[in-house]
Amino acid sequence: MDKINLAEKLALIHEHWRPKVVGELNGQEVKLVKFRGEFVWHHHEHEDELFLVIDGLLTIQLRDGDVTLRPGQLFVVPRGVEHCPIADGEVQAMLSEPSGVVNTGDAGGPLTAVRDDSLA
Amino acid sequence: MDKINLAEKLALIHEHWRPKVVGELNGQEVKLVKFRGEFVWHHHEHEDELFLVIDGLLTIQLRDGDVTLRPGQLFVVPRGVEHCPIADGEVQAMLSEPSGVVNTGDAGGPLTAVRDDSLA
Repeated sequence: MDKINLAEKLALIHEHWRPKVVGELNGQEVKLVKFRGEFVWHHHEHEDELFLVIDGLLTIQLRDGDVTLRPGQLFVVPRGVEHCPIADGEVQAMLSEPSGVVNTGDAGGPLTAVRDDSLA
Repeated sequence: MDKINLAEKLALIHEHWRPKVVGELNGQEVKLVKFRGEFVWHHHEHEDELFLVIDGLLTIQLRDGDVTLRPGQLFVVPRGVEHCPIADGEVQAMLSEPSGVVNTGDAGGPLTAVRDDSLA
């Protein structure tokens, strides 16, 4: 039952594409992450995924168009929808999705992250 | 599948304690709300509740102490925990909790809000 300061937690993240769990509610994880570069196209079969940009400019590529998010903007990628985040500069973001979801979804590969509670 | 600009949506809210649903994922609502004054002591028996402050200073009174949140700070009130938000000035916040949860929990009363999709 501690409050979470997003900026303080984000300052402790020094790698990209490795979400850190900072909270959990109703079976959903709240995670903080830094992005830079292009991720991998993937989808989550049963999970919707929320992206809230805290800093930087994040583009979520979708098969039928891009969604670009500035700080203070959020987007929910519905389950089953293929997407691929891309960031020219560094992006700081908050994510929310069901506990245990795999970041690379169906795609797998080297960007797959294991649950990281080091900032919780 | 539209992005949500938190500040733009919040600018459309002209009443206090009346959360507006702006998104939904995995059975959870994402809501925006303005607070001012003191709410009512209550708990949610089966639902954890996330508060993320966007603007202003929000105190969440708990039976064993207060948690004060500044912009960029979040707190999860666990299910079953009695709480009572209070704000001296106006607060803008994002909430997340399971769809259909009643804002006043077990307390009921005049501050009870019905689901409001007018900003969705």
